[in-house]
Formats: sequence, C-alpha cells, structure tokens
Amino acid sequence: MRPVGWVESTLTDRSEAPKQPDEGAPPARIVFRPEFGEALSGLEVGDRVVLLTWLHLGRRDVLTGHPRGDTGRAPRGIFTTRSPERPNPIGLHTVTVTGVESAAITVDALEAVTGTPVIDVKPVLGPVAER
Amino acid sequence: MRPVGWVESTLTDRSEAPKQPDEGAPPARIVFRPEFGEALSGLEVGDRVVLLTWLHLGRRDVLTGHPRGDTGRAPRGIFTTRSPERPNPIGLHTVTVTGVESAAITVDALEAVTGTPVIDVKPVLGPVAER
Repeated sequence: MRPVGWVESTLTDRSEAPKQPDEGAPPARIVFRPEFGEALSGLEVGDRVVLLTWLHLGRRDVLTGHPRGDTGRAPRGIFTTRSPERPNPIGLHTVTVTGVESAAITVDALEAVTGTPVIDVKPVLGPVAER
Repeated sequence: MRPVGWVESTLTDRSEAPKQPDEGAPPARIVFRPEFGEALSGLEVGDRVVLLTWLHLGRRDVLTGHPRGDTGRAPRGIFTTRSPERPNPIGLHTVTVTGVESAAITVDALEAVTGTPVIDVKPVLGPVAER
C-alpha cells in the first residue's frame, strides 16, 4: 500500500480533532502525487466521495475499546467501533468536494490531522439504477 | 497492512462476481485470524457493517476506466469509479451480519471472490446522536 496523497488541514493534533466530519470538522485540502491527477478526471464540485486515509498515529495492537473513548460505555470489540486504534488503521470519511485542481481537491469537512496519508477516493454509491 | 481474515464464498472467479453486494451477490463467511476474535465482541446478528477488503486480483497501474466496465460510457478517473483496478485496491462492502462465531461471521451478500483478504470491519454510522 502506498499513499496517493496527503491531507492539508488546520488540525495538527489528534486531541483537537472531532470524531467524524459532521461533528464540527474544518474544511481540508487533499494534495495528490502529481501522477494521480489523471485519476481525478471527471470529479466535480458537489460530488460526494469517500476518502480512505491511513490513520498513521493510531496504535495497532488494540482489539477492544470504549465506544467514542467514553469510559462510561462498556468496552467492546474494535471492529464494532470507528476507533482509529485498530489492526489496519484505515479511516473512512464521507465528504463533499468543494474544489478540484489538477492534482488536489478541497472538501467541506474532514476530521483527519494535517499530514495524514490518503490511500483511495471512491464515489458514494447511489441506487442501483443510477450507478 | 496485514489481512485480519479472508472471504469464504461460492464465488471463485471475478468474471462471475456482481459489482456490488446488492446486485445479486451470494451470502459469504468471513474467517478471521483467531487472535482477532476479540475484536468482534459485541457484534450482533442484524448489525450493518462495512467490510474492507484487499482486491488482490486487480491491476494497480490503471488511472482511468469506463464506469462499470461499460465501454459505451466515456472513460473517467478511477477515483470517480468503484473499479477494483486502482492504485490501492481496497474494496468497501456494506453488508448485514447474519451470524457471529468466535472468530468468523456470516453476511447476507458479498461480491468478493473466495480467498479475498479482509483488512477491516467497521460499523455503519447512524445519525450523530446515536453514535
């Protein structure tokens, strides 16, 4: 696996990052390696996409945890939570594209800190008939 | 990145696989490495989860393609499609859990072929207030 780009954000510290894009995350820019600009062709402002990131700051040996880090909730298997501490720390972020450059995009809200590697971008799927 | 489990399915050939779970895919079983059984604790029948797979049969040097492989549609950037041929061939599959074993689960429908590595499992997120 190899990063295709990186997050540029005002968020620099995990402790200040919201847990999901729709929980008060700031806008962000994704800068791609130049050779992947072609893979963005056809992407338009307003498109909903799923960004996949590699949450490189997470511990990878954690198998259970409190949902949302809330110690008032019973610990449970990490595969039933969105914790960034997991065997393969892949982040899923559903966002709206607000700008498209030759090898970069801007998005409305992203909870990942600046420097987080981006590993894939996929369209949000509509109903079967619209795919 | 390291597989946490593998797909067991009646699908053995990519050419016979539907493009998404809700397009006629068969049920499947996911067998985890024994040490990851704990990461499943709290998972219940009926839960909606996102399986992340590594689509190991895909080419990784493809940057544009016809949506859904339909040559009647103009080619576009691979990041605007769900093609398995992409720089990091990660598959996203939203499925319903139909059974939970100590280190395995069954799911209602999955379009990945047998032997596909599974790299993560995440809950489908509900509205903010229910997280």
